[in-house]
Amino acid sequence: MSVRRELWRALAPGARTRGLSALNLWLGAAILLAALLAILETEPSLNQWTGAFSALEAGLGVVFGLEYIARLWVSAEERPEAPWRARWAFVISPAGLADLAAVLSVLIWPAGSSGLLLRLVRLLRLIRVAKLGRYSRAWTEISRALLDRREALAICLGLALTAVLVCATALYFVEGDVQPEAFGSIPRAAWWAVATLTTIGYGDVYPVTPLGRFLGALAALASIGVVALPAGILAAAFSDAIKPHGGSRED
Amino acid sequence: MSVRRELWRALAPGARTRGLSALNLWLGAAILLAALLAILETEPSLNQWTGAFSALEAGLGVVFGLEYIARLWVSAEERPEAPWRARWAFVISPAGLADLAAVLSVLIWPAGSSGLLLRLVRLLRLIRVAKLGRYSRAWTEISRALLDRREALAICLGLALTAVLVCATALYFVEGDVQPEAFGSIPRAAWWAVATLTTIGYGDVYPVTPLGRFLGALAALASIGVVALPAGILAAAFSDAIKPHGGSRED
Amino acid sequence: MSVRRELWRALAPGARTRGLSALNLWLGAAILLAALLAILETEPSLNQWTGAFSALEAGLGVVFGLEYIARLWVSAEERPEAPWRARWAFVISPAGLADLAAVLSVLIWPAGSSGLLLRLVRLLRLIRVAKLGRYSRAWTEISRALLDRREALAICLGLALTAVLVCATALYFVEGDVQPEAFGSIPRAAWWAVATLTTIGYGDVYPVTPLGRFLGALAALASIGVVALPAGILAAAFSDAIKPHGGSRED
Amino acid sequence: MSVRRELWRALAPGARTRGLSALNLWLGAAILLAALLAILETEPSLNQWTGAFSALEAGLGVVFGLEYIARLWVSAEERPEAPWRARWAFVISPAGLADLAAVLSVLIWPAGSSGLLLRLVRLLRLIRVAKLGRYSRAWTEISRALLDRREALAICLGLALTAVLVCATALYFVEGDVQPEAFGSIPRAAWWAVATLTTIGYGDVYPVTPLGRFLGALAALASIGVVALPAGILAAAFSDAIKPHGGSRED
Repeated sequence: MSVRRELWRALAPGARTRGLSALNLWLGAAILLAALLAILETEPSLNQWTGAFSALEAGLGVVFGLEYIARLWVSAEERPEAPWRARWAFVISPAGLADLAAVLSVLIWPAGSSGLLLRLVRLLRLIRVAKLGRYSRAWTEISRALLDRREALAICLGLALTAVLVCATALYFVEGDVQPEAFGSIPRAAWWAVATLTTIGYGDVYPVTPLGRFLGALAALASIGVVALPAGILAAAFSDAIKPHGGSRED
Repeated sequence: MSVRRELWRALAPGARTRGLSALNLWLGAAILLAALLAILETEPSLNQWTGAFSALEAGLGVVFGLEYIARLWVSAEERPEAPWRARWAFVISPAGLADLAAVLSVLIWPAGSSGLLLRLVRLLRLIRVAKLGRYSRAWTEISRALLDRREALAICLGLALTAVLVCATALYFVEGDVQPEAFGSIPRAAWWAVATLTTIGYGDVYPVTPLGRFLGALAALASIGVVALPAGILAAAFSDAIKPHGGSRED
Repeated sequence: MSVRRELWRALAPGARTRGLSALNLWLGAAILLAALLAILETEPSLNQWTGAFSALEAGLGVVFGLEYIARLWVSAEERPEAPWRARWAFVISPAGLADLAAVLSVLIWPAGSSGLLLRLVRLLRLIRVAKLGRYSRAWTEISRALLDRREALAICLGLALTAVLVCATALYFVEGDVQPEAFGSIPRAAWWAVATLTTIGYGDVYPVTPLGRFLGALAALASIGVVALPAGILAAAFSDAIKPHGGSRED
Repeated sequence: MSVRRELWRALAPGARTRGLSALNLWLGAAILLAALLAILETEPSLNQWTGAFSALEAGLGVVFGLEYIARLWVSAEERPEAPWRARWAFVISPAGLADLAAVLSVLIWPAGSSGLLLRLVRLLRLIRVAKLGRYSRAWTEISRALLDRREALAICLGLALTAVLVCATALYFVEGDVQPEAFGSIPRAAWWAVATLTTIGYGDVYPVTPLGRFLGALAALASIGVVALPAGILAAAFSDAIKPHGGSRED
């Protein structure tokens, strides 16, 4: 019983350990490694390492299998008076199903893209780890700031999309005939407008006529606002979120 | 009468329904769909769908027509003692004219670019929807923040344009002879300067001489300020805008 | 005398007119037009308009000449008891010298680049206009925020330059042999590093080896900080600058 | 003794001189010059100047050697009752070892990349200079702001990496077959995703299919958040850092 309790304290995120236990840190690293493997396996130039990748993947499958059995065992600690009910509750919980999927994805080994996605979805299990301790407070701060200003941020998005539409329409009229491939329709011109207004600027398409460049320069100046507006809103939101009496606005 | 009142409550933005009524949500979606259609019709590679687009457009015309008749009918609720005066007030109001234009743009079906613009202008009708409820407060916050700091933001714009002029003039002198096509005049060099100082960086033109690259690197460093300065001003403006007693500066 | 006083009130920035007088607005527009002319005259494809440009330039020279004479005349209002002393004070003041240079640049018409620079320098006269009324307060706010945090902003610049040096050195070692033209020396690699860390990303040079791309991705993530850090500092500075008792830090 | 004290006051960063002494300023300039030399020596097109570079480097070596001897001599002022013990403490201190390495790097003159790194590491000696006076407070402010929000910034990084993974996986599925060189594996697609989400946008790779461009536009919009989120967090952190009673959150 004492061993089970010890293990529970090491595994369970809800247990009263401060911060992350060493075991959870190692399991988090294993999840990251599994995701990294899944990513690297898609790279053709690493095909020679397929054997090593598979072996590592199998080893991680064993680790996740053992983890699942351990979690199943220790989940009895949640309700010591009804251990099997607690275990069943774990099995059908979202976290338990994600853990089971992580194990099965190695056993069943689905081929192709569905297998890749299943292995990447394992990363969701990191959320359990990421929400602990001090990070939990930071999560709350960020999500509260975003929620608090969701309307203002939605308006920013709406203004940005409006700017994309206006710029794309203007360039479609001005450069549509000169560069039909790049500006021959509003959806095509929108590709340029999005890249410009978000200041990405791939440079695959850009206006070439004097009037097009003048309008493009105006769009470039507007891009400063597209980036600065949400940054300013978020800054104010975070300034609010941390103030003890900052909730007055919401009352 | 009860039906008219119900419909009025569902349609009118000023009615005392909290948030958006389901009917207004659907009409907003129809407006977005109409704009999307107008955009997609400009794309040559979708020409095979022209028939489907026209049918959908006609259907949306019917929807907007019915909406116009309904709005005309229920606007009597605004002044029940003089229903026809209230309806006339709606017809000649900006919102009523926009609604009428939305219907007529389908009936008259102007060809070419004027038809496209007319159909895009319909998007303005979204403003009626977008200003409701919680969004109204966010709109106020954003516009107040922008208005409150309009001088500071105008100075930012002036500094940015000055930086564009200085960088363009410098590169015109340094690279004008080496790359006459890209830097052979100040307006041409300004295209590079705008793309650099807004951090877009298309990469269609860039300095190639050592001195030009050194000045270009200075311009690149200056670009940080061009973006960070308005972001900082807006952040402070939003921090102010939400404070209950923040108006002291304006007194 | 009354006419002189009227004109003085319309011309002098220090006169007690609220905001900009109509006359100063028109003179500001003339200065902007003169600068625009100077810029457009460098564009070879507009050579056919040289005659029109010269005529317009001559006209603006007359305007600036009349303005100079008017300013000379009304500056007597500053010290009515010693009008010629006040006029001489205006002539040798920086503003007066700038005004004189603006007139002489048309009369003497220096050829080539020195003439261009002299005509662009006229823009400095806009400062007189730009500092009036509400803009004066915004200027103070911006310059106080920048001055207040000059050390923090200098450290940001130092960190950015350090990041440029580190990234350039790393890519020089990793890609120097593969792309000698782009990464064959630290100064060359610095061109890439500056374009990346400021998020400009011209795309003329970029790493191609797996390790180079990995390091490039790290530099890309660092670029978020290079932009966000000064934006955050400026945001806090502007938040401070507008607070009535915000000066406590400086005491 | 009086000379040694004078020199100590001029050299030692801990001495009670306000700001930087002229001597330390000159030594800082010498360090920057030495680093600049090391950088320029890697540039092949400057090979003709190798002789001048070597001479300058030797001269700087003499300067650093004299500086080392001087620092060794005056460090006795730290503990006048045990001068040699104080000198030994200086020799084995990190600052002393860095100073010694700076001298030895000229004497030993290691060839190739290790020599380059050794000469660049000398820049670390600037930290001694950079931490003085007002800059010390700005350093504290910046590091406190970063430390205070290290969890929130780590979450931002985590969200950015998640966005990179999601975008890369999506584009790998959509464009992997069309552009195998650019999107044929998740690591390859991640190169595009990093350049897009950080708004760098080299433009060496970009989606070309309609669906790929639509997803690319979504990624571009997400990039606004990737930049604005940490900027907002840092803005709030700096706003906090300067407030006298801002520590309440940490209690």
